[in-house]
Amino acid sequence: MPADALVADLTTALAEIPLIDPHSHIDPLHPVSKSLDDILGYHYYTELAHSAGMSQAPLGKDVSPRDRVREIVRHMGRYDNTAQYGWFLDIARTFLGFTGTQITPDDADTLFDAAETAFARPGWEKQVFKKTNLEKIFLTNEFDDPLEGFDTSVYVPCLRTDTLVFHLDRLDTRDRIHKATGIQVVDAATLRMAIATLFLHFTRKGAKACAISLPPNFEPVHYDDEYIYEQIRFHNCHDIGPGVFWIVAEFCREFRMPFDLMIGVNRRVYTNGVYQGQDLFDQRTSLIQYRRLFNAFPEVTFPVSVLTSGQNQELVSYSWIFPNVVPNGHWWYSNIPPYIRADLSERLQAVPKTKLIGYYSDAYKLEFVLPKYAMYRRVLAGVLADEFVRPGRLTETEAVALGTRLLRDNVRETFKV
Amino acid sequence: MPADALVADLTTALAEIPLIDPHSHIDPLHPVSKSLDDILGYHYYTELAHSAGMSQAPLGKDVSPRDRVREIVRHMGRYDNTAQYGWFLDIARTFLGFTGTQITPDDADTLFDAAETAFARPGWEKQVFKKTNLEKIFLTNEFDDPLEGFDTSVYVPCLRTDTLVFHLDRLDTRDRIHKATGIQVVDAATLRMAIATLFLHFTRKGAKACAISLPPNFEPVHYDDEYIYEQIRFHNCHDIGPGVFWIVAEFCREFRMPFDLMIGVNRRVYTNGVYQGQDLFDQRTSLIQYRRLFNAFPEVTFPVSVLTSGQNQELVSYSWIFPNVVPNGHWWYSNIPPYIRADLSERLQAVPKTKLIGYYSDAYKLEFVLPKYAMYRRVLAGVLADEFVRPGRLTETEAVALGTRLLRDNVRETFKV
Amino acid sequence: MPADALVADLTTALAEIPLIDPHSHIDPLHPVSKSLDDILGYHYYTELAHSAGMSQAPLGKDVSPRDRVREIVRHMGRYDNTAQYGWFLDIARTFLGFTGTQITPDDADTLFDAAETAFARPGWEKQVFKKTNLEKIFLTNEFDDPLEGFDTSVYVPCLRTDTLVFHLDRLDTRDRIHKATGIQVVDAATLRMAIATLFLHFTRKGAKACAISLPPNFEPVHYDDEYIYEQIRFHNCHDIGPGVFWIVAEFCREFRMPFDLMIGVNRRVYTNGVYQGQDLFDQRTSLIQYRRLFNAFPEVTFPVSVLTSGQNQELVSYSWIFPNVVPNGHWWYSNIPPYIRADLSERLQAVPKTKLIGYYSDAYKLEFVLPKYAMYRRVLAGVLADEFVRPGRLTETEAVALGTRLLRDNVRETFKV
Repeated sequence: MPADALVADLTTALAEIPLIDPHSHIDPLHPVSKSLDDILGYHYYTELAHSAGMSQAPLGKDVSPRDRVREIVRHMGRYDNTAQYGWFLDIARTFLGFTGTQITPDDADTLFDAAETAFARPGWEKQVFKKTNLEKIFLTNEFDDPLEGFDTSVYVPCLRTDTLVFHLDRLDTRDRIHKATGIQVVDAATLRMAIATLFLHFTRKGAKACAISLPPNFEPVHYDDEYIYEQIRFHNCHDIGPGVFWIVAEFCREFRMPFDLMIGVNRRVYTNGVYQGQDLFDQRTSLIQYRRLFNAFPEVTFPVSVLTSGQNQELVSYSWIFPNVVPNGHWWYSNIPPYIRADLSERLQAVPKTKLIGYYSDAYKLEFVLPKYAMYRRVLAGVLADEFVRPGRLTETEAVALGTRLLRDNVRETFKV
Repeated sequence: MPADALVADLTTALAEIPLIDPHSHIDPLHPVSKSLDDILGYHYYTELAHSAGMSQAPLGKDVSPRDRVREIVRHMGRYDNTAQYGWFLDIARTFLGFTGTQITPDDADTLFDAAETAFARPGWEKQVFKKTNLEKIFLTNEFDDPLEGFDTSVYVPCLRTDTLVFHLDRLDTRDRIHKATGIQVVDAATLRMAIATLFLHFTRKGAKACAISLPPNFEPVHYDDEYIYEQIRFHNCHDIGPGVFWIVAEFCREFRMPFDLMIGVNRRVYTNGVYQGQDLFDQRTSLIQYRRLFNAFPEVTFPVSVLTSGQNQELVSYSWIFPNVVPNGHWWYSNIPPYIRADLSERLQAVPKTKLIGYYSDAYKLEFVLPKYAMYRRVLAGVLADEFVRPGRLTETEAVALGTRLLRDNVRETFKV
Repeated sequence: MPADALVADLTTALAEIPLIDPHSHIDPLHPVSKSLDDILGYHYYTELAHSAGMSQAPLGKDVSPRDRVREIVRHMGRYDNTAQYGWFLDIARTFLGFTGTQITPDDADTLFDAAETAFARPGWEKQVFKKTNLEKIFLTNEFDDPLEGFDTSVYVPCLRTDTLVFHLDRLDTRDRIHKATGIQVVDAATLRMAIATLFLHFTRKGAKACAISLPPNFEPVHYDDEYIYEQIRFHNCHDIGPGVFWIVAEFCREFRMPFDLMIGVNRRVYTNGVYQGQDLFDQRTSLIQYRRLFNAFPEVTFPVSVLTSGQNQELVSYSWIFPNVVPNGHWWYSNIPPYIRADLSERLQAVPKTKLIGYYSDAYKLEFVLPKYAMYRRVLAGVLADEFVRPGRLTETEAVALGTRLLRDNVRETFKV
C-alpha cells in the first residue's frame, strides 16, 4: 500500500524475525536448486502454464531444461497476475540479480544463465539460509527414510504417514515396512510393533512431528484388533486406513509428538494434469468428522491445515474450544493473499494467540521460503495494522510481538524446537 | 481507525440510539453480576482459558471466586488478542474504573475488589441500564417459567422451545408440562392443548417471541396426528421433534408471534469441555431444509440466526425472496468482527432494510450488553462509512437512520414492542 | 470512495472499453423497454418489493402498468439500501433525466411519463447501445428459436439446453424437437441426430455458445445407448438428464462451442413467490461432481458460473488446474458488490488472467446493461487499485489493460467473436 507507512514499518520489523519453517518438502541432501528448471519445474508454474494453454510436451524428460524454462516463461504473460508469479519475480530479483518489474519471454535465457552461475556459487545453501533469515526447516519424510547425511537440528525430520494409512493394501508398502523395521505385519500387534519401531527411529533422529494429508470424507475411527487382523489377513488391508490412523495417533501420544493434519485433498481429480497438478477437493467436509479423535487424544496437539477458506470458521471454532486443536498456516489452494487475509483475520480475533502457527512454506526448494514468507508477512502486517494498531488495541511494538508469536514462538513451543 | 473521523462520528451517533436487545439469557431476578466471578465465569472466558491451557480445576465448586478469577486472569495473556478479551477490557474500563490498556495478572485482585464495590452499589441494575442506553431486553424462558417477579415491559419474555421439541422423550419433560399446564400429553390433541396453554400463559405475560436452537441436520416436517400418537404411546416420543416443531409453528401463527430460529449447533461435541463450552457445528447445513416451513407459514415471521458465516449467503438470499424470513444478529461463533463485517456488508446490500435485525447481545449478565453492542456499532459504522457514505450513496445523517433501523426500528416492528 | 482519485481514474478508464456482454436474456425483437413497467417488472424489483411486504395483487394482469409502477416505487423506501435499487437509480438518472439522489413515491408518475417519452424516441435502441458503450450482446435462445429477424452479429445467439436436458420427459418438448428438426426421438441415435440438427441450425445462425443452468445436486454422466433407449421407450425419459447433458457436451466438442455451465440453482423453492422470484439454492454442492465431464472433454471450454460465493474457491482452484474450466462473471445471488469484490479478488490472484471472463449482465432489457456493468467496473477498479496498483505490482495503465482482458479480450477469445 503506497504511503502506508505503518504497514511498511510492520513488514520491515517482521522480516527481522528468524524463521523456523514448520512444514516443507525440502530434500535435505539436495535442498537448493541446481538450475532454473528446478525453480520453474515447481508444480505451481507447470500447472498454471498448462492451465493457461501450454501443452505438456515441454515437460517431457527429453526436453532440455533450458527449453522447458523458455516455454514456461513464454506462457508467463498469461498468468503474471497471480500470486505464484509474484514468488518467481521475487526469486528473480533477490537471487538472480533481475532488476526489471516484469518477466518477459526475452528474460528466459538471461535468467537461466544467471541461475546457473548463482546456484553454483560456493556456499549457496548458506547464502539462501542467510538471505531468508531461516534458522530451521521441517521436512516431510517417508516412513523408511534413513534420515542420514544431514544436520537434523537444521533440517528437522517429520514422519509422514500417508503411505502407512492409505496404502497398506499395497504389497510394496508392507515390504518397505518389513525392510525398515524387520517386522512382518500380520495382525494388529505386529502393526503396532512396526509403527512403534518407526516412531523410535524418527524420534532418535530428532523428528519433531508426525503428519498426514487427508481426503475430505475421511473420519478417523478406532478399530478393534480383531477387525484389523481380519482386514490384514483376509481382505488385503482393504478397509483399514481409519484404524491405522488411530494407531498412529496413539503413538503420537506415546512419543509426545504433534500430529499435523492436512485436511481436504482429493487426489488425481484431473487425471491428465501435470505432475503434482492433479489434486483438487470437495468443499463439503467438516471437522465434525474428527470429534472422536480430538476427544480421545487430549494429550496430542493437532496442528490442523485446511485446504479451503470455507473450512476456516470450523478451524477457528474448534481451536477456540478444543485445547489440542491448533490452526496451522495457509495451505496450497488457500495460500493466496485474499484467503490468507480473511483466514488470518478471523483466527487472530477468536483463537488464543499462543495457539496460532502462522505459516509454513511447503517448499520443495529452499529458494521458495523467502518469497512465500515475504508474501505472508505483507498480509500479516496489513491485518495487524488494520485490526490491532489502527483501532488502538495494540501499539506497533506489541503488534510485532504478536507477529513474532505467529512466526516463531508458537512453532518453537508447539513442536518443542 | 485512527484519523478516520467519519467512522468515529458514525459510532458516536449510533451510540445515542436507545437499545432494545432482542435476545439474551438474562435472569430477570438476578440480571446483574454480584462479583467478578459472574463476569469471568461466562463461558467465553472459561473456554478460552481452557483452550489456551488452563486445567478445569479452577472451575470446581469448591474453588473460591477470587481464586478462580485470578486463574482466568492469569491466562488472559494467552488470549488477549481476541474480541472476547476486548469485551472484558471494556467492562473493566466502563464499570470498574480500570484505566490501563492491558489486563495483567496483577490486576486480578484490584478488579475483583472493584467489582465487589461497584456491583453492591445501590441501583446498580439501573446504572447498567443507563450506561448501556438500554431500554428493553428479551429473555430466554423455559416453557414452565412462572414469569413472575419482574417488569415484563423491560425484561420481555420469550418462549424457548428446545426442551419441548427435543426432549419430549424424557419423562421429566412430560412431568414438567403436566405441572405447568395440568395436561397429560398422551396424543396429538393433548400435546396441542398443552402447547396452547403454554402460549396462552406466555402471551398473557407479555412474551413477544418464541425461540429455538437447532442442529445442522434438522428439518421441520408436518407429522400427522396418528403418527404422533404412535410415537408418544409406543415409542416413548423417540422420533417426534420435527412434528412438535411444526405444532409450535402453528401456535406462532395462531398467537402472532415471531419464531426465532437459531440454526446450526451440535451439542456436546467436546464432551469434556467446560460448562457451555462443548458445542460446535458442521458447516454442511442448508436453509433448503426449511423450505416446507417457510412455504407453509407465510403469516409467521422467522428471524433466523445462523451459526456460521458460510451460511450467510443463504440467509441473505432466502430473506431477499421469502417475505417471512428475516436475518437476525450475529450469533456465537460468528459474533466476531471479521464475520460480522462480512455478513453485515452482504445483508445491507441485498436484503430490504426493513427486514434487518442488526444485533442481540446473547448476554447472561447485563454488564455484557454494553461491550458487545459497542463492538457491533464500531463494525456497523465502518460498513456504513465504506459502503454507503464514502461512495456517495448516503449522507451521514441517512447512514445513521439506516443504522437506527437495524439497531432499533426493526426490533420494534418485528416483535411489536 | 471520496478522495480516492485512483479508483475514480480507473473507473473512468474502464468505462471506455466497448462491451461484449456474453450472457443476457434480451429478446432481440424487443430489446428495449416500452414503459417503466418493463423496467420495474424485472424480478429483482417485484421480489424485493414482495419480500418487503408488497402483496402480489399489483402484479396481476388486470392492473395497469402505471398503477403497478406506483406500487413498486411506493415500497422502494423499504429496499433502497440494496444494490438492485442502485441499478434503478442509475437508470433513472442516465436514461430518464432524473436529477434527485433518492427515488420517492412522488417520483413514480414523473418517471413513468419520462419513460414513455424516452423509450418512444426514434432510435432508442441505438441510443442505449451508445450510452452503454455496448458492441455485442449474447442471447439465451430456446432450442427451437428460429433466430430470425435480427442482426446476429450484434445479438449473438446462444443455445440454451435446459429444456432438452431436464424436460425431455414432457411430451411437448419432444413435439417441439420434432417440429424444429423433423426428427422423432425414439432412441439414442435419433436423439443425437436431433441435437446435431439443432447445433447445425444454431451455428449457421452465428451462435457462439451453448448454455445450461443446473441444480446443486447435478452430476453429468455418460449413459450408454441401450440405457437411453430404455429410458425413452419404457420410462418416459424419466432418468435421462445426465446422459442428454453428456451428448450436448459431445456436440459442443464437435461444433467447437464453449458450454456455459450455471451451477447451483434449485427451482421453485418459494412456491408462491413472484414470477422468476421463486428459485433458491443449497450451498452444499461441489465442482467435484463435474470431474468426469472436465476430464472427458479437454477440447471443450466450460465457462462456469457459480450461484454462491461459497463455491468460488472451488471455481478458482478448478480453473487454476483444468485448462478447460474458466470462471464466468458473477451470477444472480452473487451479483452484489461484497460478493463480487471477494470473488474477483480471489480469481485475480490465482487464475491465469487470460481465463477470466469478468462479467455479464444477465439482463432482460437493454437498459440494465449499463447500471450493472457500472457497478462491476466500480468494484473492479477498487480491486485493481487495492491489490495491484497500490502494492506496486502494476502501473495504472497496466491495471487498465488487465481490466480490459476481463471486460473484453477474454470474451472475444473464449467465444471467438
